[in-house]
Amino acid sequence: MTRWPLPPHMARALQEARLAAAEGEVPIGAVIVKDGQTIAIGRNAPRQIHDPTAHAEMVAIRAAAKALGNERLEGCELWVTLEPCAMCAGAIVHARIARLYYGASDPKGGAVEHGARVFDQPQCLHRPDVYAGIGGPEAGELLRDFFREKR
Amino acid sequence: MTRWPLPPHMARALQEARLAAAEGEVPIGAVIVKDGQTIAIGRNAPRQIHDPTAHAEMVAIRAAAKALGNERLEGCELWVTLEPCAMCAGAIVHARIARLYYGASDPKGGAVEHGARVFDQPQCLHRPDVYAGIGGPEAGELLRDFFREKR
Repeated sequence: MTRWPLPPHMARALQEARLAAAEGEVPIGAVIVKDGQTIAIGRNAPRQIHDPTAHAEMVAIRAAAKALGNERLEGCELWVTLEPCAMCAGAIVHARIARLYYGASDPKGGAVEHGARVFDQPQCLHRPDVYAGIGGPEAGELLRDFFREKR
Repeated sequence: MTRWPLPPHMARALQEARLAAAEGEVPIGAVIVKDGQTIAIGRNAPRQIHDPTAHAEMVAIRAAAKALGNERLEGCELWVTLEPCAMCAGAIVHARIARLYYGASDPKGGAVEHGARVFDQPQCLHRPDVYAGIGGPEAGELLRDFFREKR
C-alpha cells in the first residue's frame, strides 16, 4: 500500500511532538505558517516550565504574535497534531487564525468537534476553516506510545 | 441605601481592571488567592504585549504557577471582574483552580454560563466551584465607560 505523504507542515508539527515526548511532555506539536513560511513552532511544555497554559498551540500562537508584532495572526495557518482543547480553540479565535489543520481527533479533551465545540457557538466572533485528520494516525500513535510507556 | 462592601479580592481585581483601562486595554482584572494570600495578579494586556492570549485570567494563572513552581494551582481561588471566555475557562480547568469568583456576566464572550459552557461539558476533567455577580455592577460600569470613550 502506498501511503499519501504527509504535508510538510504537519510533518514538522509531528517532529515537535516527538521532541515534547523526549522531554517527558505529552507529545503534541504545532506550527504556524504565513504565506507558505513557518513563522512559529510550539510543543507541549506545561510541566517543564510550570505553565498550565503551555499547550503546543498556545506556545506557537504567542511566538507568532511576538514575531509579527501583532496580537492578530490574520492570514495565518495553524497546524497541530491533536484536536485543540477549549483553551486553545478560544486562543485560535482571539488570534484570528485563518485556517486550522489538525491530526488526531480528541474525544476526551477536544473542543472543535467534541464537547464545548467552540467554533460552533453562535457568539463565536471568528471561525477558522478547519481541516481534520491530516497525520491523524501518526499523531495518535505517538500519544499511545507515550502513555503506554508511562504505565 | 447602604451597599454591601465588595470583598477585598474583588476590589483588587477591579483596581487591576482600572489600570488596564489606563493602558488602553479592555478593563478586566484578576487576582489569584491561596490560603487567603494574594499570590498573583493580572490585567488584560493583549495589545500592549502583542499576545492574543494575555487575558487577565491567563496572566494571573501563569504568574501563580510560576510563583508556586507547579502547573497545578490546587486550592487556589481566581477572582476576575468578567465571566471568563472559552480560552480562560479552559485554562482554569487545566490549572485545577478550586474556586472561581467573577463579577459581570458576559453574554457575548463568556463561556461559563453562556456559549461553550466549558465546565458543563461531560468531558470536563475538573470543575471549580463558581460564584458569579460579585462586583458585577462595578465591573460592568468600567467596561461601559471604556467603550463609550472609544466611540
